[in-house]
Amino acid sequence: MNKEKLKNLLESIKNNEIEVDEAMKVIEDLPYKELDFAKIDTHRELRVGYPEVIYGEGKTTEQVVKIIEFMLSKDNNILVTRATKEMYEEVKKICPEANYNELARTITIRKRDDKVTDSYIAIVSAGTSDLPVVEEAAETAMIFGNKVVKITDVGVAGIHRLFDKLNIIREAKVVIVVAGMEGALASVIGGLIDKPLIAVPTSVGYGASFGGISALLCMLNSCASGVSVVNIDNGFGAAYNASIINKL
Amino acid sequence: MNKEKLKNLLESIKNNEIEVDEAMKVIEDLPYKELDFAKIDTHRELRVGYPEVIYGEGKTTEQVVKIIEFMLSKDNNILVTRATKEMYEEVKKICPEANYNELARTITIRKRDDKVTDSYIAIVSAGTSDLPVVEEAAETAMIFGNKVVKITDVGVAGIHRLFDKLNIIREAKVVIVVAGMEGALASVIGGLIDKPLIAVPTSVGYGASFGGISALLCMLNSCASGVSVVNIDNGFGAAYNASIINKL
Amino acid sequence: MNKEKLKNLLESIKNNEIEVDEAMKVIEDLPYKELDFAKIDTHRELRVGYPEVIYGEGKTTEQVVKIIEFMLSKDNNILVTRATKEMYEEVKKICPEANYNELARTITIRKRDDKVTDSYIAIVSAGTSDLPVVEEAAETAMIFGNKVVKITDVGVAGIHRLFDKLNIIREAKVVIVVAGMEGALASVIGGLIDKPLIAVPTSVGYGASFGGISALLCMLNSCASGVSVVNIDNGFGAAYNASIINKL
Amino acid sequence: MNKEKLKNLLESIKNNEIEVDEAMKVIEDLPYKELDFAKIDTHRELRVGYPEVIYGEGKTTEQVVKIIEFMLSKDNNILVTRATKEMYEEVKKICPEANYNELARTITIRKRDDKVTDSYIAIVSAGTSDLPVVEEAAETAMIFGNKVVKITDVGVAGIHRLFDKLNIIREAKVVIVVAGMEGALASVIGGLIDKPLIAVPTSVGYGASFGGISALLCMLNSCASGVSVVNIDNGFGAAYNASIINKL
Amino acid sequence: MNKEKLKNLLESIKNNEIEVDEAMKVIEDLPYKELDFAKIDTHRELRVGYPEVIYGEGKTTEQVVKIIEFMLSKDNNILVTRATKEMYEEVKKICPEANYNELARTITIRKRDDKVTDSYIAIVSAGTSDLPVVEEAAETAMIFGNKVVKITDVGVAGIHRLFDKLNIIREAKVVIVVAGMEGALASVIGGLIDKPLIAVPTSVGYGASFGGISALLCMLNSCASGVSVVNIDNGFGAAYNASIINKL
Amino acid sequence: MNKEKLKNLLESIKNNEIEVDEAMKVIEDLPYKELDFAKIDTHRELRVGYPEVIYGEGKTTEQVVKIIEFMLSKDNNILVTRATKEMYEEVKKICPEANYNELARTITIRKRDDKVTDSYIAIVSAGTSDLPVVEEAAETAMIFGNKVVKITDVGVAGIHRLFDKLNIIREAKVVIVVAGMEGALASVIGGLIDKPLIAVPTSVGYGASFGGISALLCMLNSCASGVSVVNIDNGFGAAYNASIINKL
Amino acid sequence: MNKEKLKNLLESIKNNEIEVDEAMKVIEDLPYKELDFAKIDTHRELRVGYPEVIYGEGKTTEQVVKIIEFMLSKDNNILVTRATKEMYEEVKKICPEANYNELARTITIRKRDDKVTDSYIAIVSAGTSDLPVVEEAAETAMIFGNKVVKITDVGVAGIHRLFDKLNIIREAKVVIVVAGMEGALASVIGGLIDKPLIAVPTSVGYGASFGGISALLCMLNSCASGVSVVNIDNGFGAAYNASIINKL
Amino acid sequence: MNKEKLKNLLESIKNNEIEVDEAMKVIEDLPYKELDFAKIDTHRELRVGYPEVIYGEGKTTEQVVKIIEFMLSKDNNILVTRATKEMYEEVKKICPEANYNELARTITIRKRDDKVTDSYIAIVSAGTSDLPVVEEAAETAMIFGNKVVKITDVGVAGIHRLFDKLNIIREAKVVIVVAGMEGALASVIGGLIDKPLIAVPTSVGYGASFGGISALLCMLNSCASGVSVVNIDNGFGAAYNASIINKL
Repeated sequence: MNKEKLKNLLESIKNNEIEVDEAMKVIEDLPYKELDFAKIDTHRELRVGYPEVIYGEGKTTEQVVKIIEFMLSKDNNILVTRATKEMYEEVKKICPEANYNELARTITIRKRDDKVTDSYIAIVSAGTSDLPVVEEAAETAMIFGNKVVKITDVGVAGIHRLFDKLNIIREAKVVIVVAGMEGALASVIGGLIDKPLIAVPTSVGYGASFGGISALLCMLNSCASGVSVVNIDNGFGAAYNASIINKL
Repeated sequence: MNKEKLKNLLESIKNNEIEVDEAMKVIEDLPYKELDFAKIDTHRELRVGYPEVIYGEGKTTEQVVKIIEFMLSKDNNILVTRATKEMYEEVKKICPEANYNELARTITIRKRDDKVTDSYIAIVSAGTSDLPVVEEAAETAMIFGNKVVKITDVGVAGIHRLFDKLNIIREAKVVIVVAGMEGALASVIGGLIDKPLIAVPTSVGYGASFGGISALLCMLNSCASGVSVVNIDNGFGAAYNASIINKL
Repeated sequence: MNKEKLKNLLESIKNNEIEVDEAMKVIEDLPYKELDFAKIDTHRELRVGYPEVIYGEGKTTEQVVKIIEFMLSKDNNILVTRATKEMYEEVKKICPEANYNELARTITIRKRDDKVTDSYIAIVSAGTSDLPVVEEAAETAMIFGNKVVKITDVGVAGIHRLFDKLNIIREAKVVIVVAGMEGALASVIGGLIDKPLIAVPTSVGYGASFGGISALLCMLNSCASGVSVVNIDNGFGAAYNASIINKL
Repeated sequence: MNKEKLKNLLESIKNNEIEVDEAMKVIEDLPYKELDFAKIDTHRELRVGYPEVIYGEGKTTEQVVKIIEFMLSKDNNILVTRATKEMYEEVKKICPEANYNELARTITIRKRDDKVTDSYIAIVSAGTSDLPVVEEAAETAMIFGNKVVKITDVGVAGIHRLFDKLNIIREAKVVIVVAGMEGALASVIGGLIDKPLIAVPTSVGYGASFGGISALLCMLNSCASGVSVVNIDNGFGAAYNASIINKL
Repeated sequence: MNKEKLKNLLESIKNNEIEVDEAMKVIEDLPYKELDFAKIDTHRELRVGYPEVIYGEGKTTEQVVKIIEFMLSKDNNILVTRATKEMYEEVKKICPEANYNELARTITIRKRDDKVTDSYIAIVSAGTSDLPVVEEAAETAMIFGNKVVKITDVGVAGIHRLFDKLNIIREAKVVIVVAGMEGALASVIGGLIDKPLIAVPTSVGYGASFGGISALLCMLNSCASGVSVVNIDNGFGAAYNASIINKL
Repeated sequence: MNKEKLKNLLESIKNNEIEVDEAMKVIEDLPYKELDFAKIDTHRELRVGYPEVIYGEGKTTEQVVKIIEFMLSKDNNILVTRATKEMYEEVKKICPEANYNELARTITIRKRDDKVTDSYIAIVSAGTSDLPVVEEAAETAMIFGNKVVKITDVGVAGIHRLFDKLNIIREAKVVIVVAGMEGALASVIGGLIDKPLIAVPTSVGYGASFGGISALLCMLNSCASGVSVVNIDNGFGAAYNASIINKL
Repeated sequence: MNKEKLKNLLESIKNNEIEVDEAMKVIEDLPYKELDFAKIDTHRELRVGYPEVIYGEGKTTEQVVKIIEFMLSKDNNILVTRATKEMYEEVKKICPEANYNELARTITIRKRDDKVTDSYIAIVSAGTSDLPVVEEAAETAMIFGNKVVKITDVGVAGIHRLFDKLNIIREAKVVIVVAGMEGALASVIGGLIDKPLIAVPTSVGYGASFGGISALLCMLNSCASGVSVVNIDNGFGAAYNASIINKL
Repeated sequence: MNKEKLKNLLESIKNNEIEVDEAMKVIEDLPYKELDFAKIDTHRELRVGYPEVIYGEGKTTEQVVKIIEFMLSKDNNILVTRATKEMYEEVKKICPEANYNELARTITIRKRDDKVTDSYIAIVSAGTSDLPVVEEAAETAMIFGNKVVKITDVGVAGIHRLFDKLNIIREAKVVIVVAGMEGALASVIGGLIDKPLIAVPTSVGYGASFGGISALLCMLNSCASGVSVVNIDNGFGAAYNASIINKL
């Protein structure tokens, strides 16, 4: 829509050739939806039951507490990722029902009991050292209202453990695979299932694992076709993705 | 199932307490499904209409022709990615209805007219140099039976072009974003939609783009939460992922 | 502005409480400028005399010719970067006054004689192998209407050559420094002048120059404070930046 | 000037054809300005009101205090970057009017009230974790006598926040964009404005952000043409650049 | 084995043509060994005398103690690698005969006195800083029942020290070479012996040793043909490999 | 032995206090074995039946022909790796019984029929594009007198193909695993067997496979303990290692 | 010299207290030697017999011929490095006595027979593929008037070959070590000699040699103390360094 | 020399056909010098006055004290690099005349007053943060008996400071340049002098200096020909090299 058309439209209003409500729809269709999608975003969140998410890293305890204080006035569930225990201690003072998952480093506050999905997200991990990322993913998926099944310690070094659990993995609607070191688990599972698979490389390992680069590259180069990848240790991002897919 | 249960089962057969056919079903349920899931895989492919996929790179024209010759005896659609024109010329001799998309470097052969999905995959790209990856993704998604909408040349350098197309992108069931150079398009779209987004970094660029590393890192670090990433220039993998999600 | 205010505004028009022109100004202030800035961009280009720029790499000769064909209908100067000689041969057929700078790999078409700036951009380079990037920068700056002074082959291996030219460099309004290998020239000049300095690392060198990474890192770490950096071999980007500054 | 001319000049002195003072000016113009430009540099700094800048990292508190002690005898404003709180405590003892910006890690001492520029530098940042770099840039720009406008937390994940502030950004004379993670904000703003844009990648992020490499590469590869880049977390360098441009 | 053969087998049982125990052996040979090889693995370990190995890094002291508590009920030797002293203190409380090698960071518990091999593994190292990796390799090899000879501090900077020990190295059945910095020792020994050589790069060094990358690359590129490589600082992995070979 | 002792020894000869033959043994024990081990090396090669090996890359056809011409006078088998077809054409002229394996890029000349080992080396590979490396390894192992079993195209994307072949792999004396892309096959096999496993990463792949780095890192970080690694595409080195082990 | 002293000097001229010629010498000693040292450089070259050096890479044949044409008017020896055969063919037309070393890729023209040094530079290399770099170093050192001794193919895989030549190496005044792959030769020789050692990593190798990075890192991390390093394949630079040292 | 010749020689002694002393010279020429060069090395050190050097990093205080205890029985000067203050406190107890340079992190013990060289080593550095490396180099060079001149804080950001000191640098016999950040100082000085220049990159800097990689690459790619490089922060290695050259 250019200026001329807009002027014509407004003059049509003036001349009573068009109703105000009809004109409004047209103007709302203009690109200023950019202002609007802020609101749409808010609506969407209320609608799909996503809590506000606070990324705790690089924030002070005071900042986190202030943000939560504001959020508590709303009806949303609240999730803080990469939260320190100290943050939790302060949050508990203004919100005693807050929960802290030490392994996941998450604070969660449930203000509504959202309906949980029937279909589930399977979170599969290679070794015990990958558990913090598994837990972050699980806390994220659960507060977003997803049913979650965790299958841990099924790394390829003892692949029979994986096969025992294959049915549970195959029946999930979407699968998150969490693995460090060489990250081969994503490829192996990717070759065995027919579901979206989100791979999370972890920084578990030493030497040439280079803080997760080895697992990241392994997953990006997976010879199994149905694998997509998120950032190293990004359990939250994987769960956010999985939740969107699980609710399709 | 452990040895004891197996022994009991076999003795039940011996004692005519169970029929051989029934026993067979149980034994087939044992973990040697690993042998079996090859067949299951085949079934799955027939069922969901996925064609066999041949990765042409590193194969000789003769090898590709021989594989296709064998496949033509089956009822599947056929897709060859990273195919050279020379491969196509030879394939056409044994299968005149084969199609070649030169930009995508794909050969496709449709032996069945599969039902196309109602929901669609949006493939969004930043610049004209990203088109080969867009086309590979589109050919892949289409031969898998997906409806595809392409929105090209909407890179962030002229972001208003993107906003014009935002509604089409938002109404897709899953979105593929293809971008080289700095790959910022994935983050921008990721912040505007509520659908699964699969980002494909491309090797488009020069200097510090390092053959796609810059775009890859950008996408992995996206501040928008719903972004997952596949390998550089991997249009096929993105479409394979998107197809799984689109058919959920 | 929210919906209510918009409705009130439209009803004011209807009721003749406000003039259409006045209402238009308000509505134009709404964020749909995002659609608008496409136009603004166009206006800006006409106003500041910037030609349309075509990035030739990754485009076919046909695509480039078609884009130029369309552009020739407008009154703008035209610049194609990373253009092959073959592209130029074809462009010349539809536009005989097109020029080709083989070193710069640029095609330029001047349809207007824009006023050239009084202040000038100094383009300083280290060695003869850096000349292609110098030329790309110079062609870009000149077709944007800037006065350009080139000072080449003043690398730090023979630093006295640089000092001979220091006055010319100091009197520029903005300085572009083009250097490969170790890229030290940017730091040396940066420590001697009081003007904005845009450094362009080039891929000149071998071995541990890693295609320009060495020069890039050197420039990013410059101990001289007034140095900013563009991509490896990006003569165009440096000149674009310099032109904006030169016209402030 | 060659030897012959120099000889002629000296003989003119001898022959009283030229005054010593006049001859001195000529000889001072000879390339030994290299000794001289130290003084010129000093003059320039007095003239443009730039304070002496001390890079605190790698210096002991004692060293910093001694340098400041010496500087206090001059009439300049003083800036210490990367200063620890301990440094500040000691500096305050000899200069009670010293200020410390904890977030920016800067010590500033204003000994003169320089005139502030009419035009302003806009410092735009993506997330709250980028604030330390924003603050370092702001403190630097301000003590150099620039008017500064900060626009924070407008990252591309919620791009509408950015559009709300676009007018303020567009009216700046020069724009600094500070962003970590994928650094896409620089490209987006670069595509929307017609002013010099200096991008500062930050080390904010984790995993594949590799301490700022991801943002750095993203910015260097920006598809928006008017973007130049400084070192990771180098708020000081960006502001120094911006100040030079703002005062042109 | 296909379905038909399986059906025939089961019908043979039913018809008493084959004994249940004999049939079981056949069925156990079916691919469900994947479930089974967990057990086979256990058997193999009992047979070759390999202890259970616990990787201590990333595990809490409590986790390690619980795993050992369970293992003590079995008749195996126990090895914990990357164990902290704190872990050892707790382990000692439930198993006073546990040993701690502080340099190797290993806890070992010998519950059986396995026969030690006649042939030996030579562990050769370059400098004193490589000793922790040497010790980890030695502890691993010894608890696996191998005879071990350590030859330390024979780096190439004083190559005559190496030649003095060459006979001892040549008479080993398999050789482990541990070296940091430039890792040249592996190539030098590899050119002098006719035995399998497993090279372990260490993170010893500074600057451009990049935490072991330099030694790793050196060893991977060894011009001596008989060199294979394990991860940086992976003394355990080298010894595990060497033990398999030593017991062939 | 120092000069004094040597002098005493010689004087003992002179004084007939020691026999010449006895003295010789002592002197031969001196470190001039360094001259000697050249001979020892030659003997060793004759003894273990290793052919001379020529690395063809970076050599001219003339150089290769001349080296072979010399070697043909000896009784050894001959192996040229990385040989071009052109080299082979020239070699055939002076040695018609030379063989060329085009895939492996090897020339082999058998002058003796060495006894082949009873135990075998299993060479397992992931995809068809890995075949050149498989063939180089096989040609090397065979001309060294080893029995070889090749198991190709059993990558983890279809892991059941691997399980079908597991028994053959388990019965080998040493296993070579050849894989590109993410290289996960080494970890999976490493977790299933109890034999030395030498992993060869290949440069097969694209994008983030970075010419084999992805597979290399994956293999170095294998969570399976018995895996050691050689250089990218180094089929020769893996076979050389395997041959040493196979002949222990 | 400060302004005051300069003024005094000029006044002394005016007052005839000093002769013009004497004053000139003093003024020439002023820091404008920066202009002057160009001349000094020329003098130095004439004095030490260094030829002009032309780096051929990135220059056109025409450019090289023109530079040589100019140089032929002077009395210097001429060296072109990284010269193509085509360059040589053209140079020969204007200077029939020009020599071309195809392996070294150097053109040399001897216009004077400079005295050759008594002491010599030893150039030691690991394998035959390193010969081009050896030859470039040798041609450079020789045209600079140095005696050169080449010791090739003494890589550490057969270290006895090296020991045979150790005396020749030890008697050199300065040693250049040229090696690719793992570059261990520099460390081994560095531990055996008491002379300056300049190491040249070469791009010889494949896979994880990464175009010379492996050898470069190996040499930089050499545990032998007396090793310094130049760029990958930089035979010229090593010889230039060695020549300066050899002539001390 | 082969066995036969050796036997003949020994029989000649027995038969008094040759004198023992003459025979000894021949036998000493045999390759067992490899055993001997240990002794030669010792002699060389005594002769040139080099102290024993202990690399403190990765050693315990106890280890360092023990090594020094042993060394004190010899007549050599002693140098410990990378020594902690704690090490020094313990060393002082057994050797009160030990000195500690805290900046250099060196312990030195002078047991002999070696003659100091007439020629000197110039150690030039860019910034104050490079001082620890300067000091390590200076302590090393001085205890090796070299005259040392330090010229600090002459980085290229204020290049006139360098020119003031150029004469002192030019008159050195060998020059060490220590610089972090972009390391341009080595190129600048390399272009101005005619002496061997050893460049030491330092880890000074932040962001894209990557712990010294930027300076390292810059120095390796120096366009000035006479520059060779040692490891990052390796002041010791540079001084060791310089000392060898200074004493030629």
